[in-house]
Amino acid sequence: MLKLDEIQKRLLREVADLHGVPEGAYNIRSNSASAGRQSTANIEIVPKEEVSGLEIRIKPGTKNESVHIPVVMTQSGLKEVVYNDFFIGEGADVVIIAGCGIDNCGNQDSQHDGIHRFYVGKNARIRYVEKHYGSGTGSGKRILNPGTEVYMEEGSYAEMEMVQIKGVDDTERTTTAELAAGAKLVVRERLMTHGDQRAISNYVVNLNGEGSSADVVSRSVARDHSFQKFDAKIVGNAACHGHTECDSIIMDEGRILAVPALEANNVDAELVHEAAIGKIAGEQLIKLMSLGLTAAEAEEQIINGFLQ
Amino acid sequence: MLKLDEIQKRLLREVADLHGVPEGAYNIRSNSASAGRQSTANIEIVPKEEVSGLEIRIKPGTKNESVHIPVVMTQSGLKEVVYNDFFIGEGADVVIIAGCGIDNCGNQDSQHDGIHRFYVGKNARIRYVEKHYGSGTGSGKRILNPGTEVYMEEGSYAEMEMVQIKGVDDTERTTTAELAAGAKLVVRERLMTHGDQRAISNYVVNLNGEGSSADVVSRSVARDHSFQKFDAKIVGNAACHGHTECDSIIMDEGRILAVPALEANNVDAELVHEAAIGKIAGEQLIKLMSLGLTAAEAEEQIINGFLQ
Repeated sequence: MLKLDEIQKRLLREVADLHGVPEGAYNIRSNSASAGRQSTANIEIVPKEEVSGLEIRIKPGTKNESVHIPVVMTQSGLKEVVYNDFFIGEGADVVIIAGCGIDNCGNQDSQHDGIHRFYVGKNARIRYVEKHYGSGTGSGKRILNPGTEVYMEEGSYAEMEMVQIKGVDDTERTTTAELAAGAKLVVRERLMTHGDQRAISNYVVNLNGEGSSADVVSRSVARDHSFQKFDAKIVGNAACHGHTECDSIIMDEGRILAVPALEANNVDAELVHEAAIGKIAGEQLIKLMSLGLTAAEAEEQIINGFLQ
Repeated sequence: MLKLDEIQKRLLREVADLHGVPEGAYNIRSNSASAGRQSTANIEIVPKEEVSGLEIRIKPGTKNESVHIPVVMTQSGLKEVVYNDFFIGEGADVVIIAGCGIDNCGNQDSQHDGIHRFYVGKNARIRYVEKHYGSGTGSGKRILNPGTEVYMEEGSYAEMEMVQIKGVDDTERTTTAELAAGAKLVVRERLMTHGDQRAISNYVVNLNGEGSSADVVSRSVARDHSFQKFDAKIVGNAACHGHTECDSIIMDEGRILAVPALEANNVDAELVHEAAIGKIAGEQLIKLMSLGLTAAEAEEQIINGFLQ
């Protein structure tokens, strides 16, 4: 049994789809302490000694296993930096579910900075899911600054779904990746900001090895008075393929700045980028409204589809 | 008759397609002095008094007239900053041909910084062509830093063809534009760098007025050990359309960094960007070679087509 109250359980459902203790390896962090931890035969979770955080060691060849390491915070004014390192052994194939939910009912800011480092071994595969969510009626901000570093060895594959659902007042998201020969990185970012929120998202992907490739796609919605900045740089240092795309819907008084960069340092680097910013198309709204939806419902449905 | 030697005449042909005195208004600048100047009834060219450069005043309603203001430099070690201001009257429709050719046979750098300001009146239209070219066997560099500022009033239209043909060792190109309601800016940039050349190209286009639009397309080729940086920012401050595209061919040890930016500050701003960097497609080469061309000829033909 987990030592969690109802709010913490709700946050856990939002960020990790968890309705109880997950299968496999897990560590559930609640207000800076572990509310439950389990290693398995193949996946060892060890707390760090010098700084806050975990070492997650996944044995070579581990298949069809998962690690859950969600974080929930309900104590107003809590500020923490957590360093989690993942060592994914050669040929392993695992799912890693992170995510952080903050409920802030106080007037002090709550902040979680999660620094995740992934050492993806030769021919290993990971699917990583990270969801961020904030709630609570306090005037204190909910601040989430994820730092993600991915080191990919030859032939490895990483698929990263990074989602900020709602309720996060301020975020600076930094993702860097270094890819060896034949490695492939797929990133799907989904971001929604509302109210006076601010979101900065930075990517630097270095395609260092022959045949490495990256596909970084970000979709975002900026509502109310919120502001978003998206910076994504794909660097081709070898014969490689890089693609990045950012599509944004702007609403109300929202503002978006997209600054993608392509850097080709090798004659065999092939890099492509697309970006589009605009509001919801009028025809789409009218079509849904003619089916009986209100304007607000139609808008909601379009946004949900876009962010799926 | 123009007071120009054979090299100067050749440069003039390269940058402005001129084989003699142009029709209409013109000023030909050669080694920091005027080699010939002519105003017309509708287009007045007046030298500035406090700094080097010209004021070009085009009367409202002037149609089907042209201004040529090419610059040639053959004296090694010459460095100049020239300020040319264009006042284009309401409803005018004119062609402006600029361009600069440097032949440097000495060991000192030759540098021309041309700052062009365009005040495009209500409903006026301009077509602007600017070609940059360098030649000469000296070890001194040929440096060209064009600064272009465009202020577009309601309903005005500007089409700008900015070309750096070859032989320019170092360039920093800066273009800024401010568009009022209904104004439209079209930019076609063509850039080729070779040897150890370096080219930096910056655009900032502010779409301030309702219904304003911009279409900025850059095509470039980086050969040998050359380096290019392309920075283009389209800012939507009103209901507007902005499109920017940069396509680059990379060859040999060339390097390219493309950093386009879209900034939407208004819910009715529609901004789109595309970029691609890659080498010449193998199939294209093979096709042309099967028609009897050598590899080098095939490459040349593909590049010429791409930069046209």
